[in-house]
Amino acid sequence: MRNHTFAFLAAALCLSPMTLPAATPNVVIIFTDDLGYGDLGCYGSPTIRTPNLDRMAAEGLRLTDFYSASEVCSPSRAALLTGRYPIRSGMYGKRRVLFPNSTGGLPDAEVTIAEALKDKGYKTAHIGKWHLGIHPGSRPLDQGFESSFGLPYSNDMDGIKGKTPRGSGSPTPPEDGWNVPLIRDGEIIEQPAVQTTLTKRYTEEAVKFITEKKDSPFFLFMAHSFPHVPLFASPAFKGKSRGGIYGDAVEEIDWSVGQIMEVLKKQGIAENTLVFFTSDNGPWLTMGNQGGSAGLLKDGKGSTWEGGMRVPGIAWMPGRIKPGVSSVQVNATDLLPTALALAGASSPKDVVIDGQDVSPLLFEGKAPAERPFFYYRSDQLFACRLGEWKLHFKTQTGYGQAKPDEHEPPLLYNLALDPSEKRDVAKANPEVVAKIREAVKAHQEGVVPGVAQFE
Amino acid sequence: MRNHTFAFLAAALCLSPMTLPAATPNVVIIFTDDLGYGDLGCYGSPTIRTPNLDRMAAEGLRLTDFYSASEVCSPSRAALLTGRYPIRSGMYGKRRVLFPNSTGGLPDAEVTIAEALKDKGYKTAHIGKWHLGIHPGSRPLDQGFESSFGLPYSNDMDGIKGKTPRGSGSPTPPEDGWNVPLIRDGEIIEQPAVQTTLTKRYTEEAVKFITEKKDSPFFLFMAHSFPHVPLFASPAFKGKSRGGIYGDAVEEIDWSVGQIMEVLKKQGIAENTLVFFTSDNGPWLTMGNQGGSAGLLKDGKGSTWEGGMRVPGIAWMPGRIKPGVSSVQVNATDLLPTALALAGASSPKDVVIDGQDVSPLLFEGKAPAERPFFYYRSDQLFACRLGEWKLHFKTQTGYGQAKPDEHEPPLLYNLALDPSEKRDVAKANPEVVAKIREAVKAHQEGVVPGVAQFE
Repeated sequence: MRNHTFAFLAAALCLSPMTLPAATPNVVIIFTDDLGYGDLGCYGSPTIRTPNLDRMAAEGLRLTDFYSASEVCSPSRAALLTGRYPIRSGMYGKRRVLFPNSTGGLPDAEVTIAEALKDKGYKTAHIGKWHLGIHPGSRPLDQGFESSFGLPYSNDMDGIKGKTPRGSGSPTPPEDGWNVPLIRDGEIIEQPAVQTTLTKRYTEEAVKFITEKKDSPFFLFMAHSFPHVPLFASPAFKGKSRGGIYGDAVEEIDWSVGQIMEVLKKQGIAENTLVFFTSDNGPWLTMGNQGGSAGLLKDGKGSTWEGGMRVPGIAWMPGRIKPGVSSVQVNATDLLPTALALAGASSPKDVVIDGQDVSPLLFEGKAPAERPFFYYRSDQLFACRLGEWKLHFKTQTGYGQAKPDEHEPPLLYNLALDPSEKRDVAKANPEVVAKIREAVKAHQEGVVPGVAQFE
Repeated sequence: MRNHTFAFLAAALCLSPMTLPAATPNVVIIFTDDLGYGDLGCYGSPTIRTPNLDRMAAEGLRLTDFYSASEVCSPSRAALLTGRYPIRSGMYGKRRVLFPNSTGGLPDAEVTIAEALKDKGYKTAHIGKWHLGIHPGSRPLDQGFESSFGLPYSNDMDGIKGKTPRGSGSPTPPEDGWNVPLIRDGEIIEQPAVQTTLTKRYTEEAVKFITEKKDSPFFLFMAHSFPHVPLFASPAFKGKSRGGIYGDAVEEIDWSVGQIMEVLKKQGIAENTLVFFTSDNGPWLTMGNQGGSAGLLKDGKGSTWEGGMRVPGIAWMPGRIKPGVSSVQVNATDLLPTALALAGASSPKDVVIDGQDVSPLLFEGKAPAERPFFYYRSDQLFACRLGEWKLHFKTQTGYGQAKPDEHEPPLLYNLALDPSEKRDVAKANPEVVAKIREAVKAHQEGVVPGVAQFE
């Protein structure tokens, strides 16, 4: 399928090293769970060492303003894989995420990156956490992945009664406090999953997949189970970080990222593989020492304040992506159109895609035109960002605040001058408020909510 | 004075590139005013671009746990230049810093880095803000500097009545709202100082000094006036950053740092010059968009919460300092003993030096033995850090809280697990509390307060 000779010639003839990659580049998305904006060295963590991710950032493009498209897990994953706000796919409801007893899930009709790239001849693999449904139509093999290895949902679900409760103060709960299954291609192969070695085993699977598929174009969705609580780390990492078990888990993920970069280089395909690293939402602050940090951003997981949805975002493709830092707003719904554009795959038909192909930003430094980003909590639009401005219609802390505060007039923050959202400047900027209201109106007029999946 | 042949031979014969530098290395301290922990790219700023400081950090040692030895300006500067907590030198009093009408200042008897290195044959220069006294005995030329160019105190002092008030909302106040003089070697050469070009002119002076003294060992104390309000930037920087005039001022300082690294490289002396970059205290948070950010740290300037005293700290000497990140506690009182040890200069006699030579950390990665760090506000010891633990006896926000909260039992935080100081864990760790109490007692028994200078 892939023309290696052409890729080689294109590289050899190329005058500028920073150009669009050859046709059908590989795509690897590394997705962490509950990692906060401030939890990597290259994003300012004073306590966690992430030399591999720091190198990835130094060699790649580090985005200071990258967003997950939801403040919690299941909808965020749906948005990343479909390029659509979760309200369109129905990934919302009475509960905030899917639970083991949920009957819903990502609808079969939704088109994921995996499906679109598979149609284009890509080999596709899911490794790690899924959390998009366990029933037919919603499972990894139903959604375009040719193979799947990992947990069906969060690692704290299926707790065994009477054992360590969720988010307990215990730095590492006993393994047998949890009964989450480890599943390969739809079959349970271990229950409870031995969580201590999960990151290590995910990594081994990823290295094996990359090595085996190196001659095909491939798409790997590597969705880590950590640093979501309960936290575990391999013996090589446990107790080694300065940041406690949370730091240990992040440092093991950093090691894992290093292994992936290394195998890509070893196989000679790093320059034709887009690796994108990010997180599903902000840090789970109520977990105390077992929760991460949003750095200078306000609040965390579960909130539409910046700390809940702005997360690390690093793009790497050595020799193709020019090293740098960008503060352009990019979000998880952009990954599908970007991956499809790189692969030359067609966009799903008759489907609204919210994201945009940002490959011109990655490979040529060309920022997309100003466009709004919408902060949803379940099916409610809480806020909207346009340029440097963010307008909040409703605000709510991630956990602990029962009902949202409603704001009319809404609150306006300038995220460039005031990234920590301290100073409401709505009164002084009525024209900005009006402009964002219009963007919201236009967006909402075009939204047809999907059938709610989180009953 | 300096033996270049020896230095060359030592370098040529050296098996490991990371060794102690040759005798009499140059020392450059770049000291910013009110720059916060979170205001540089390499410390996680999403809004300010500091490519030169990021490179300095990538090529040098970035300290995640570096402290100024006071939460405000004058005492912090005294501590840095003398290696002593300000209580010993008398750099405290009824007012929090020196003002133009103060009669006190750094006592003549105090020995500064400049005096000690000058005795060892170093050429010494002060460029930038002084703020250690304007009366005989306290001035730069009285304290070991052979030349001085800059402002005698903060750039917001000597405001002209009826003009823009201090810290006004105006992004850039009119130049003529301030009447601070620019002084060269004791003589006023410009009043009011044209602040727009201050950073540029400080930089030109620094480049000139380095170029002229390149064959002598030299000590340069480069104390920027910004990003203290009122904020100004050269036309080349004004309006260019994403962070408003505050970001513009910091980006111009970043440019200045790049100029200094460049001239050191151009003159072939970078490998024999220790450059240390830091700030005098945390960000002035009450200045709103004109104040910086302490990142994930609590509070800012004026407070003994981490955000008031933990600041960026970067050591650079290419080929000598191994690139890396360290979380060892280092503080501004360490700079005098370190500089003197490198120069082979004797320590001041009959004087208590609080700091410690940290050259083994910089050049060989050897951390100093665990030692306490004391957080003072004026002559009051508010807190003490030992290892990862910080014990607060008193707390007070930087500005806005009239009296301190007194804590008995004191509050204990684990700065590795909880860098944002959210969770008091004193009850669970009585032995740590007892150990730090002992360290405080031992310290206080040895402190003889100097005569208060800030009447």
